[in-house]
Amino acid sequence: MKEEVSSKSFQVKAIGRVFNDFEEEIPDGYKEMISCIKVYDEYTDCLKGIEEHSHITILSWFDRSDRTVKQVHPMGDPENPLTGVFATRSPVRPNPVAVTVCELKEREENELYVKGLDALNGTPIIDIKSYSSKYAIDNPAYPDWVLR
Amino acid sequence: MKEEVSSKSFQVKAIGRVFNDFEEEIPDGYKEMISCIKVYDEYTDCLKGIEEHSHITILSWFDRSDRTVKQVHPMGDPENPLTGVFATRSPVRPNPVAVTVCELKEREENELYVKGLDALNGTPIIDIKSYSSKYAIDNPAYPDWVLR
Repeated sequence: MKEEVSSKSFQVKAIGRVFNDFEEEIPDGYKEMISCIKVYDEYTDCLKGIEEHSHITILSWFDRSDRTVKQVHPMGDPENPLTGVFATRSPVRPNPVAVTVCELKEREENELYVKGLDALNGTPIIDIKSYSSKYAIDNPAYPDWVLR
Repeated sequence: MKEEVSSKSFQVKAIGRVFNDFEEEIPDGYKEMISCIKVYDEYTDCLKGIEEHSHITILSWFDRSDRTVKQVHPMGDPENPLTGVFATRSPVRPNPVAVTVCELKEREENELYVKGLDALNGTPIIDIKSYSSKYAIDNPAYPDWVLR
């Protein structure tokens, strides 16, 4: 393959942001904790019908993440092999987009109360999507460290 | 809630792009078809170890999508109820990021051959992530149209 260099970039807009008590780091036990996503008023129409989902997929923009790191020891554990960030879900990556499936506990107008979001207070939200079991994969294979 | 208006936006960079035969639309049967993702050379180090995954999560930037649409009849079917794009996986949405889990058939250096990508030829790729069953949800609920 000839060398090909990226020059393209795009503007991604915050469509809302996160309100919770996670100021510096994501606490152990976050999977049981509730965050509020306030969707900006200009996007309220985009939420019509969302309360019919028990779970939604949330795309966050981790604005405090280092975008220059290319390899990590997954989960910060030096016993896990040095791995490219595209083979992990590390929050450090060239475009710090996190994809998290959360239970939607309640909707009040443009406020969504969700369980299990792994984003700090104030984190911009860039997209929300339907979640279903339609696209689930049977028996995927992955490195052992994933389940550690 | 007081009115809150978004002013924040961020720069998302293409880390690679798609090569396939889908020039105008995604064909029926795309789930069985192979696309090649060429990751730009500057990001090759980010791929280390990715071949240990049978499936990967691919984030595409649908650069030909309308970003102004707020509600759709899902799957373009007028019998499906008018629904906010954040309650769907529609390709039209304020930030046109698609999240697709694909089988990774082969890796050759910075070329990834994947099955089932729903992106047109030339589409920019903005992120690639580990996929596992670790985050699967048991028995999610969602509207009937999702499975149509």
